[in-house]
Amino acid sequence: MSARNNTEPLAPLDRDRYPADPWRLVDRIYREDNLGLSETLFAVGNGYLGMRGNHAEGRTNHHHGTFINGLHETWQIRHAEQAFGFAETGQTIVNVPDAKVIRLYVDDEPLALDVAELLEFENALDFQDGVLRRSLLWRTPSGKHVRVTSDRMISFEERHLAVMRFDVTVEDADAPVVISSQIINRQDGEDEYGSRRQKAAGFDPRKAETIGERVLQPEQFWQDGDRSTLSYRITQSGMTLAVMADHLIETENDVVKRHSIQPDRAKNVFRVQARAGVPIRLTKVVSYHSSRGVPPHELIDRCERTLDRVTTEGIDVQYAKQRAWFDAFWERSDVRIPHDVQLQQAVRWNIFQLAQATARADGLGVAAKGVTGSGYSGHYFWDTEIYVIPFLTYTNPNFARNAISMREEMLPKARERARQLNESGALFPWRTINGEEASAYYAAGTAQYHINADVTYALAKYVRATGDVDFLARGAVDIAVETARMWATLGFWRRGAQDTFHIHGVTGPDEYTTVVNDNLFTNTMARFNLRYAVESVRAIQREYPQAYRRMVDRLDFQESELLEWEQAADGMAVPYAESLGIHPQDQHFLEREVWDLEATPDDKKPLLLHFHPLVIYRFQVLKQADVVLALFLHGDEFTSAEKRADFDYYDPLTTGDSTLSAVVQSIVAAEIGYRDLALRYFEHSLYVDLADLHANTADGVHVASVGGIWSALVYGFGGMRDFDGLLTFDPRLPEDWPELDFRIAWHGSRLLVRVTQDAIRIEILDGEAIDFSVRGERFVVEPGSPVVVALEGQGPVLTGIPAAPLGTRREDGTFITASVPTLPGTPE
Amino acid sequence: MSARNNTEPLAPLDRDRYPADPWRLVDRIYREDNLGLSETLFAVGNGYLGMRGNHAEGRTNHHHGTFINGLHETWQIRHAEQAFGFAETGQTIVNVPDAKVIRLYVDDEPLALDVAELLEFENALDFQDGVLRRSLLWRTPSGKHVRVTSDRMISFEERHLAVMRFDVTVEDADAPVVISSQIINRQDGEDEYGSRRQKAAGFDPRKAETIGERVLQPEQFWQDGDRSTLSYRITQSGMTLAVMADHLIETENDVVKRHSIQPDRAKNVFRVQARAGVPIRLTKVVSYHSSRGVPPHELIDRCERTLDRVTTEGIDVQYAKQRAWFDAFWERSDVRIPHDVQLQQAVRWNIFQLAQATARADGLGVAAKGVTGSGYSGHYFWDTEIYVIPFLTYTNPNFARNAISMREEMLPKARERARQLNESGALFPWRTINGEEASAYYAAGTAQYHINADVTYALAKYVRATGDVDFLARGAVDIAVETARMWATLGFWRRGAQDTFHIHGVTGPDEYTTVVNDNLFTNTMARFNLRYAVESVRAIQREYPQAYRRMVDRLDFQESELLEWEQAADGMAVPYAESLGIHPQDQHFLEREVWDLEATPDDKKPLLLHFHPLVIYRFQVLKQADVVLALFLHGDEFTSAEKRADFDYYDPLTTGDSTLSAVVQSIVAAEIGYRDLALRYFEHSLYVDLADLHANTADGVHVASVGGIWSALVYGFGGMRDFDGLLTFDPRLPEDWPELDFRIAWHGSRLLVRVTQDAIRIEILDGEAIDFSVRGERFVVEPGSPVVVALEGQGPVLTGIPAAPLGTRREDGTFITASVPTLPGTPE
Repeated sequence: MSARNNTEPLAPLDRDRYPADPWRLVDRIYREDNLGLSETLFAVGNGYLGMRGNHAEGRTNHHHGTFINGLHETWQIRHAEQAFGFAETGQTIVNVPDAKVIRLYVDDEPLALDVAELLEFENALDFQDGVLRRSLLWRTPSGKHVRVTSDRMISFEERHLAVMRFDVTVEDADAPVVISSQIINRQDGEDEYGSRRQKAAGFDPRKAETIGERVLQPEQFWQDGDRSTLSYRITQSGMTLAVMADHLIETENDVVKRHSIQPDRAKNVFRVQARAGVPIRLTKVVSYHSSRGVPPHELIDRCERTLDRVTTEGIDVQYAKQRAWFDAFWERSDVRIPHDVQLQQAVRWNIFQLAQATARADGLGVAAKGVTGSGYSGHYFWDTEIYVIPFLTYTNPNFARNAISMREEMLPKARERARQLNESGALFPWRTINGEEASAYYAAGTAQYHINADVTYALAKYVRATGDVDFLARGAVDIAVETARMWATLGFWRRGAQDTFHIHGVTGPDEYTTVVNDNLFTNTMARFNLRYAVESVRAIQREYPQAYRRMVDRLDFQESELLEWEQAADGMAVPYAESLGIHPQDQHFLEREVWDLEATPDDKKPLLLHFHPLVIYRFQVLKQADVVLALFLHGDEFTSAEKRADFDYYDPLTTGDSTLSAVVQSIVAAEIGYRDLALRYFEHSLYVDLADLHANTADGVHVASVGGIWSALVYGFGGMRDFDGLLTFDPRLPEDWPELDFRIAWHGSRLLVRVTQDAIRIEILDGEAIDFSVRGERFVVEPGSPVVVALEGQGPVLTGIPAAPLGTRREDGTFITASVPTLPGTPE
Repeated sequence: MSARNNTEPLAPLDRDRYPADPWRLVDRIYREDNLGLSETLFAVGNGYLGMRGNHAEGRTNHHHGTFINGLHETWQIRHAEQAFGFAETGQTIVNVPDAKVIRLYVDDEPLALDVAELLEFENALDFQDGVLRRSLLWRTPSGKHVRVTSDRMISFEERHLAVMRFDVTVEDADAPVVISSQIINRQDGEDEYGSRRQKAAGFDPRKAETIGERVLQPEQFWQDGDRSTLSYRITQSGMTLAVMADHLIETENDVVKRHSIQPDRAKNVFRVQARAGVPIRLTKVVSYHSSRGVPPHELIDRCERTLDRVTTEGIDVQYAKQRAWFDAFWERSDVRIPHDVQLQQAVRWNIFQLAQATARADGLGVAAKGVTGSGYSGHYFWDTEIYVIPFLTYTNPNFARNAISMREEMLPKARERARQLNESGALFPWRTINGEEASAYYAAGTAQYHINADVTYALAKYVRATGDVDFLARGAVDIAVETARMWATLGFWRRGAQDTFHIHGVTGPDEYTTVVNDNLFTNTMARFNLRYAVESVRAIQREYPQAYRRMVDRLDFQESELLEWEQAADGMAVPYAESLGIHPQDQHFLEREVWDLEATPDDKKPLLLHFHPLVIYRFQVLKQADVVLALFLHGDEFTSAEKRADFDYYDPLTTGDSTLSAVVQSIVAAEIGYRDLALRYFEHSLYVDLADLHANTADGVHVASVGGIWSALVYGFGGMRDFDGLLTFDPRLPEDWPELDFRIAWHGSRLLVRVTQDAIRIEILDGEAIDFSVRGERFVVEPGSPVVVALEGQGPVLTGIPAAPLGTRREDGTFITASVPTLPGTPE
């Protein structure tokens, strides 16, 4: 098979089961074979609260998950060997009590999807209002026909709110109907089988760490009429949580209510004497509140206020507000591929995931899986800054600002961490929920110092695209300054004919090579970080003198630091191999053996699950190509020829074992002219989750990859760039695509960009005139006067795909040879 | 202060407290301030069973420890992040029930050393019979004078046996005397405070990992007359243990006996109506038996058989046998420095420790702390092979053979581990008790592939010094073959004008630089390993054809492997820097910044306790100089000029934070002529434990350092080498030493070597004539005809000490500059 896992022909979605629809993901067949996938694909969430797409009956499942962003337990890491500065406390997102459960009994027979005879079934997630709707017709064991229509919405207006409606009609007979609405603490009890699963399935570092002890300590729990409340304090972290559900039953049938409560389970049961054809509607309104330590009884008060307000306003109003919210979202964020409804559906599902992951995160981070699963323990990584914030900046800048503010609030802990690592300034944690470094595996964790520059990159992107220097002046400049200080002490000068600044002992985004010297990506990003610190300090000094003086005091800032940063940036070592005409990934990358991916059997992939890190690290083989990522992020610092040479070298060495890989390969392939390859990488990314291409979508949506899809569309095919604060376009529309539309925000204006095979059209949707350039030519677009620029083709055209660099002669006269790591048989 | 921590002027021992004595370590003052040190220095053990030097009363202490080599608990390592092939199971030596306890009450007042008025006190460990003897005169609160004389012996003849005698005489009055002999399971109860202590003191990777759960599950426990028995099964590892104590009370006073037993405590109490001046003697005879899983009742039977035999033979016989054992030991192992009783005492204490750590380990390994403490969790490391087995080979070859056999038995697990690491052959665990890799920190663990060559080095040393090819033929050759196979697949060929064989991604013994390419030590050792595999296979082929055929079948051996190994050895890359004229520690070592040790404050040492590994790894700074170790172990492969240049470069960069460092620096300093420095390093090593120079002797004796002291004497000052199987001498007697004597075994003969300032004298003590050379000239010594060779001085003389290499110009025109890692203040 090809080394390019990410460009293989796709197993197309089964369109009988998942019909194409431009605004919905629809599932027409209930199947048990990959429940985890469905649970993720049909999850709903608003960036604060998330519920996996478990069916309301709450029985067969892969993982019943309900998550609150940032609500976590801590636990003591038990190292085999400890060393100074290793993380000591693990952080794991908590599965909060499950309020999704609504069970139905007809003639005392339970509706259980795995065994029920379903005459009709449709489950659909609507991107236009974020509501998950299910409709089914059940033939009960006694032959009665029961229509069940339900929905589930997590509000984007009220972030603590979830609403569920459950409509039941026994169509052709009278029958006793019982609807049992529940809240179940699964973290500590029923159906929580994480650790068993993990053991049985072998290790997978991409899953959540599980915690053996009881996590949710019950505090107050009570019922009052149709309201049930559970509240907890988390054992080690001390965080608190309350959940309250209110119920409204509407029917002309007779109803008897029962309820019961225990620390881990609340039930509101409705016993209905259903007459044939007479509908029953149960509306369940749920509120979750959480905090770092506010007493649970206060959180219960907050839940009550939320529910009181919502029930007073009326439920229908909530649905209407939700629709309005999404109308506005799509107005800002939609990307259209009008000719292909299948692609369109997939693109919108992905963009919809970005809303679900970020919209109401407010001051919180964006976890690797958003709020759709517990993969990577609910931690925040660099992915947000590099893969998600660009989308937010260009569509919903306020969300971007919130995400960056999260890092600003994290600065005190990042300063402490820098001290532990013996550096000045601040060092952001590689993975964290609460701001403390949670990665104890430094080689692919703490050594990724580039996190610092990634955060600054996101800040710069936001400020440059919005012009919001005020945000810098209010304190965000501290991010740039403190990260620059870290780089200035981390690196060192080598004095000689030409002084050079070196950064040793770091890991780039490619985690298949770790703790190296002068990683190209890191050095390029650090150079950017140092320069942006100078730029942002000077901007404040110029525009906000008072804020500048406050900053000087706050950070004990010395004017001389600017010179130090400029010198370090100018002297930054950028590895380059003359003989091969490429940038080595790090100073010594080319001395490694080349891993022969062609000869590696499929059952040994992904490599990280089958080889000890020491084995992988010894080879030229990439999880994701970080040089190629640098070519994209800092495209103005490399020539076209360099981009081509680097891409040709690295692409064949790239496994794509990281989902962050394909989108970047797509963008750069598009730029340099590998048009087919660009499209194949894009389509792979597009279906990473929808077609479960990495076989772990069950653990949650790959949010960064999803963000990258937007980038692949806008930067890759749309050819947009914004180096130095100028909006530029050099489109690369795929051959078969007649048209691509996208909407972006720029300095307070909003643009509609339409790329076709022979022109690019730019229109102001609202706001002021703006400057831009197309293929080097400058234009101004005024409100009401769209600009159309004719295009001669879609850039260079390269055919085929790059081949592995084997047999190439190097500078020292040796040849690049490849081998597969020994794959010896099993021992006697 | 000087960078050379290991050569600083010593805080001399307090000779009022510890008087010089050529055959005993004596303590004349009971003090509480460093009890842990005393407990280690006065520990007794035979390599199987060890008891720390806690006083019999068993009250104030640092750590009540009784250890059985290899008896361990396992526990699940809780990684913050898991990766393929990481160790999952921790192994920790168990503190077995403490049978040392004998408590004394006079007039119901306890003898408690911390508060007692002691009119006389002496505690002495006798190197001539391995008995710890204590004598004290106690003035009780009521003013009576009580003479207490006790001893403690762990038998070297009966490895399961410990004997204690406790003599009490109330000298000047009648008094009720109670002697309470106990066995206490401290692992799970009283006085076992490991985890609290560890937390309070902050982390220290050199201590034992502690286990939270109950470790010893009680099985049978009973008393029968004066015998008490406890037995246990270890919770996770399933290992089993029994301990039995028998008591004999001898006195002319009236005695009443009482006893009681619980799962964790057995008591035999003797109530004596003591008359003035009438002595009381309690003899306590204890047996410990352990196993991997034999039922405890069977171990109890074994204890009974041991005690029956011993009590039948009589106690005095045991003491006499012990003396005879040690007479023979010293006859084989003594090193004499006749002119200085203080040095002589220290040397003998150290050599005595080697007996205590190894003598009755029999098929078990030798833990880093022997059986004197739980430091490093009781694990076996490479230290034994490189630092201890040379001593054993030259003095007690049978012990060496036993230690190597342990590795042979470990081969099946080492083969499995090689498969996990994707290599052929076998890969020995970096640290282990049960043969499985217990190091989950691969950078300073699994990456130390050199363990494989270290084991082969020890094997080769033993075979070459004894001529015991039969041992190879019986199966030990498998070690050489399987380790060579590992190297052949670990390394790779770089094809060019001259093909070279490279080994990437490994860590040498210097743990301050990890996961590097072409570590000089590793490559040199691997080359040796490959060549010795060829040599040993050919030897068997030649001398034991049948055994050879069995080996071919057993190992699926191909004749072509020999050629492969020879080629890899011949092509082995050995890094050399022309511009500086030195061997870089690894291919890229010289690109690092130099850590300025002179400028590093004392409170930041040792570095490993104050800097994150990533920080340390970024610099030229050494825990121990592994290039220098290679210069010693493979001295025939380097010129004198190379040795001088390398030593001059590395010595100033070496912190000596490892106790393995100073002995090697001493040997090479002596060889190249830094006579003062050699002596200072030697004296440092000599007092590492006696003067607690690394402030952690409380955790146990540094057994490898102790082995290195013998090497420093014999190889360093004695100038002995044995490259290629020829015994050579080129002495380096320190200026102030008139004479140095040592005894060595060589091919079945035993030699007495006497070095003086102007001659070396060699005499056969028993056995055949042997060949040797002195400074290149060949001699033969016949039995009964000592050979005296006149010496012109003691080799080259260099004054001063090497200076840090700062300011040196490198090949690329740059200068070597130094910096201290940033030491920023504490964050706001």
